[in-house]
Amino acid sequence: MMFVCSRCGAHEPSATRAPRCRCGGLWDLEHEHPPFDPAAVDRREWSMFRYRAFMELDDDATWQSVTMGEGMTPIIDFDDDLALKMDYLMPTGSFKDRGAAALIAHCVSIGVDRVVQDSSGNAGHAVAAYCARAGIGCEIFVPQGTSPKKIDLIRASGAAVNVVPGSRDHCADVCRAKVAAEGVYYANHVYNPVFYEGTKTFAYEIWEQLGRIPANILVPVGNGTLFLGLVKGLEELLDAGLIEAMPQIIAVQAAGCDPLLRAAEAGASQPAAVTPEPTLAEGIAIGAPMRGAQILACARRYGVRFVHAPEDEILPARAALDARGVHCEHTTAANLAAYWQYCRQWGPTPDCLTTMCGAGLKSDH
Amino acid sequence: MMFVCSRCGAHEPSATRAPRCRCGGLWDLEHEHPPFDPAAVDRREWSMFRYRAFMELDDDATWQSVTMGEGMTPIIDFDDDLALKMDYLMPTGSFKDRGAAALIAHCVSIGVDRVVQDSSGNAGHAVAAYCARAGIGCEIFVPQGTSPKKIDLIRASGAAVNVVPGSRDHCADVCRAKVAAEGVYYANHVYNPVFYEGTKTFAYEIWEQLGRIPANILVPVGNGTLFLGLVKGLEELLDAGLIEAMPQIIAVQAAGCDPLLRAAEAGASQPAAVTPEPTLAEGIAIGAPMRGAQILACARRYGVRFVHAPEDEILPARAALDARGVHCEHTTAANLAAYWQYCRQWGPTPDCLTTMCGAGLKSDH
Ligand SMILES: Cc1ncc(COP(=O)(O)O)c(C=O)c1O
Ligand SMILES: Cc1ncc(COP(=O)(O)O)c(C=O)c1O
Ligand SMILES: [Zn+2]
Ligand SMILES: [Zn+2]
Repeated sequence: MMFVCSRCGAHEPSATRAPRCRCGGLWDLEHEHPPFDPAAVDRREWSMFRYRAFMELDDDATWQSVTMGEGMTPIIDFDDDLALKMDYLMPTGSFKDRGAAALIAHCVSIGVDRVVQDSSGNAGHAVAAYCARAGIGCEIFVPQGTSPKKIDLIRASGAAVNVVPGSRDHCADVCRAKVAAEGVYYANHVYNPVFYEGTKTFAYEIWEQLGRIPANILVPVGNGTLFLGLVKGLEELLDAGLIEAMPQIIAVQAAGCDPLLRAAEAGASQPAAVTPEPTLAEGIAIGAPMRGAQILACARRYGVRFVHAPEDEILPARAALDARGVHCEHTTAANLAAYWQYCRQWGPTPDCLTTMCGAGLKSDH
Repeated sequence: MMFVCSRCGAHEPSATRAPRCRCGGLWDLEHEHPPFDPAAVDRREWSMFRYRAFMELDDDATWQSVTMGEGMTPIIDFDDDLALKMDYLMPTGSFKDRGAAALIAHCVSIGVDRVVQDSSGNAGHAVAAYCARAGIGCEIFVPQGTSPKKIDLIRASGAAVNVVPGSRDHCADVCRAKVAAEGVYYANHVYNPVFYEGTKTFAYEIWEQLGRIPANILVPVGNGTLFLGLVKGLEELLDAGLIEAMPQIIAVQAAGCDPLLRAAEAGASQPAAVTPEPTLAEGIAIGAPMRGAQILACARRYGVRFVHAPEDEILPARAALDARGVHCEHTTAANLAAYWQYCRQWGPTPDCLTTMCGAGLKSDH
């Protein structure tokens, strides 16, 4: 299994501990696995590792001690036009478990016994829980102001929580300084390419469940860990001849923090500089997405449309989901708000699927 | 589909609105469906309704508008001896969704448009969420002192919450008085026999996942909605010739509230009178289980062993589960505490499965 630099193309065995390439580029994974093949899905395995024949994994055993049954989430109706993939029905309550399970299996495979991560949100919680499962030491850096509940959840997994005064960005700097100084493994959802081997199973699952891919798929994009996984999974379905064309991918950004939407509208290849405004959709409020150029390149290649989640429709969207029995996080309700906005901009949009990516049970309110 | 009185044997069409038989007995369901048959599992359906060929349902359509993908929960290792069925990976975070989905599908089928229920815990939340999904009006009676978080979750589903001063029992009395006075439907998890058509899928799933039934299955017993469902499901597997004998069922009660354990040890056919002491395992702290005699009869028939969850081991058990990445409610941690206790009493117990029945994300602490 090989890491390949997304900037200079340098190769490095996947056992590397380097968080990124010497040139500063983020790692991608060299695609070596066979194409998706329905006959090779291990249908006895009730987790996303049923697709392991098509996932880049260092070995075929490690995942067994790491999995907590993440994936295989149901798809239910919101209404006649919109389907919900209930992707928060996961061990830690968000889709990040897909990525964390793949990433921590990788860590076990290459003998990592200690990791750090700097997410205050669902990714940090997921990494902490999977580290507990794998017996890997874990320290999570969170910025001052992170909710006590999130900190409690991370601590419950036995991870050390390091509350860093200052901004989110400063917190990441402190964490990365530790990586640089102590050589401890950086189990970061954006940096580590193995994370996307997990999130791409989102696409496989939809195909297996429905026997097809809906015409429209709407996903949130902050750093794009689901977006990039989705694109990867869909590309593989395309390569395998199981779908004839890419669906219309609809990428959601917060109205107050939309560097990718602005760049896409301007035809730019790098995220726009933005000053993030406060938003209920905290999970996608990423002002400077690390893989922004990669996301924008994918978006151009596949005609992705970006759409805002209007801030004042997030709470009504959450209420509308609750009225259908579905209790999600604000960031997840933003998907429905964005779907409404999309329908206003582009007209009625039947045969659309969106992810329900974060559980309401995780919310503070 | 017929209800049959568990006391006098009277029959009544399942469309009845009567919460119990004229004689005061609780309803059971007449078994009319074909025996479990692996070939008749609808493997394209990723919810417990994949087993609908073996569930008593009024019709074959209603469930489709009610399901939220409940069931199909993974089984993972705790250690070499103990497996965990992750049954809190459910829309509302507990196994009660199995029962609620079946019950509310039934309500839709028979044209109920308004229900009441008097559970302050997971059953009330589950019924409220499925009512929202089904567009059925719902009022939940909860005793004073119910945690604000639970009330918020129920309210989020659009259900009316009626906080009743006084005890849990008084709250139930007030609710039942409303049922009697206004004829509103009583969607109670203990009373309504359709609930168990949902919880029995727990057994089917284990069989489908593992291709067998473990030698030992440990479940919590308060009112016994999972216990009775499990027994029903296992009986059907036995009838179908898919298992040769019942597994050793291990029934957990709180050390401070154990009317069934005491009765079983005394060879009594009715629950013992107990004065419940406070316990962290709130979900099983039922002093006078309504179906107690039925549970005890099952227990005698199948050699069920009762075991205490020692109060002072609930928190250590929860920590041990967290250290394996699994974050559950206290009532659920009590299962592991009880397993430890069982191993002390009966010796090492390999090939044991327990349910992880309630999500830690639902806990207040
Ligand atoms: C619930 C939820 N939705 C969406 C996102 C956005 O994911 P990404 O930043 O990888 O695009 C996150 C990220 O934390 C999240 O927690
Ligand atoms: C998490 C959890 N476990 C166990 C139980 C006990 O279920 P029962 O009372 O049906 O035996 C409950 C009931 O509310 C529960 O919520
Ligand atoms: Zn490089
Ligand atoms: Zn009767």
